[in-house]
Amino acid sequence: MKLGKVIGNLVSTKKEGNLDGLRILIVTYLDENMIDTKKTAACVDTVNAGDGDIVLLCSSSSARITRMTRNSAVDNITVAIIESISFNNRYISRKENGK
Amino acid sequence: MKLGKVIGNLVSTKKEGNLDGLRILIVTYLDENMIDTKKTAACVDTVNAGDGDIVLLCSSSSARITRMTRNSAVDNITVAIIESISFNNRYISRKENGK
Amino acid sequence: MKLGKVIGNLVSTKKEGNLDGLRILIVTYLDENMIDTKKTAACVDTVNAGDGDIVLLCSSSSARITRMTRNSAVDNITVAIIESISFNNRYISRKENGK
Amino acid sequence: MKLGKVIGNLVSTKKEGNLDGLRILIVTYLDENMIDTKKTAACVDTVNAGDGDIVLLCSSSSARITRMTRNSAVDNITVAIIESISFNNRYISRKENGK
Amino acid sequence: MKLGKVIGNLVSTKKEGNLDGLRILIVTYLDENMIDTKKTAACVDTVNAGDGDIVLLCSSSSARITRMTRNSAVDNITVAIIESISFNNRYISRKENGK
Repeated sequence: MKLGKVIGNLVSTKKEGNLDGLRILIVTYLDENMIDTKKTAACVDTVNAGDGDIVLLCSSSSARITRMTRNSAVDNITVAIIESISFNNRYISRKENGK
Repeated sequence: MKLGKVIGNLVSTKKEGNLDGLRILIVTYLDENMIDTKKTAACVDTVNAGDGDIVLLCSSSSARITRMTRNSAVDNITVAIIESISFNNRYISRKENGK
Repeated sequence: MKLGKVIGNLVSTKKEGNLDGLRILIVTYLDENMIDTKKTAACVDTVNAGDGDIVLLCSSSSARITRMTRNSAVDNITVAIIESISFNNRYISRKENGK
Repeated sequence: MKLGKVIGNLVSTKKEGNLDGLRILIVTYLDENMIDTKKTAACVDTVNAGDGDIVLLCSSSSARITRMTRNSAVDNITVAIIESISFNNRYISRKENGK
Repeated sequence: MKLGKVIGNLVSTKKEGNLDGLRILIVTYLDENMIDTKKTAACVDTVNAGDGDIVLLCSSSSARITRMTRNSAVDNITVAIIESISFNNRYISRKENGK
């Protein structure tokens, strides 16, 4: 699973694979200091995440293991909004992000 | 899921894995500024995308979750043509691409 | 499978995909000298690993092949705590880590 | 799916996972100019590809969706021999390769 | 599928996912000249490979398609010991390795 930061979303009209009604976000993955990297991905949102939120992402066939994405052609989804991270004696809270 | 830009297609005569009748595109993945990277992939088209279109790509076993690719040996497909992307306070529309 | 070192954990309130009750760790992958790399990932803990532990990680659909993660939207889990590694005529023991 | 060029093959005697009778090739992946990269992989051949052929490769669980590889422990197979590629206003034909 | 060279193994006491009795090796992946790269991975051994052996590796869900790993949380296994490789007009034999 990866940690990402929501930076945007997209609109598409022509879709396949039972994507109708799913919200698609743009995220950047986080590095070991929990800073945005330049690596971008798209994902389907299952937790109503918004811009600036740090999210936990689940990929591959496991991305279909939610009520919302079962039977959809998705390979990357948000599975949690992260409140705080403790790592290497540091602590990051969502509230510091102004949320 | 990844964002890519369609840059071409290919023709093959000798195929396996129930690929007959499927259209295979060449795409380059997009970076955090939604610019073409040098990373190229092939994918099966399920949304009738054309050269220059920005597409949403779905990979792994989830690439088989469409009517068209069920039971085919495919690991990357287009699942949507993207109309617009909002990210980092920027906005990109398909129409700016001349489409 | 990959080798990683546990460096932290995270807390989230809003979750999907049957993640309730699962503990989520932050790990860095190890390089060929078994030193931390800068590559970070999140994973679900199934072996009660703690900070500093070297763990064996299992990803993709195989991450759902444990009692704890069956039917959960997870793509990376700890499957073992490593006691010792022998490689290229070197030997690393967990006890040297003060455990 | 990826594009690769066949550069060789291998012989093994001790096998598991129902690999008996399958031909294993060495390929290098192609970059955005359809030139060999330095990235090498092995794959199981399902289309009788030979040295110098440009092939379409299918990975992950989808590599088991052919008559030949069903029930085999394979994660990368050739699914097509490519006759021609059109991309970025360029055209590459297999015949230019002397085939 | 990837080519790797066995460089070591590891011992763990606390395990999940039906790993008991499985032997876990450390491998480095090989580059286009069949030389060790710095990229290391762990894998479950199904062919009784030893230090210095060149092995064929199978990953993802396909790593569970052997008698030994069925129902185990493994995502990378050895599926063959390689006797010889022919590529780019070169030939490498296992016997040259002193085996």
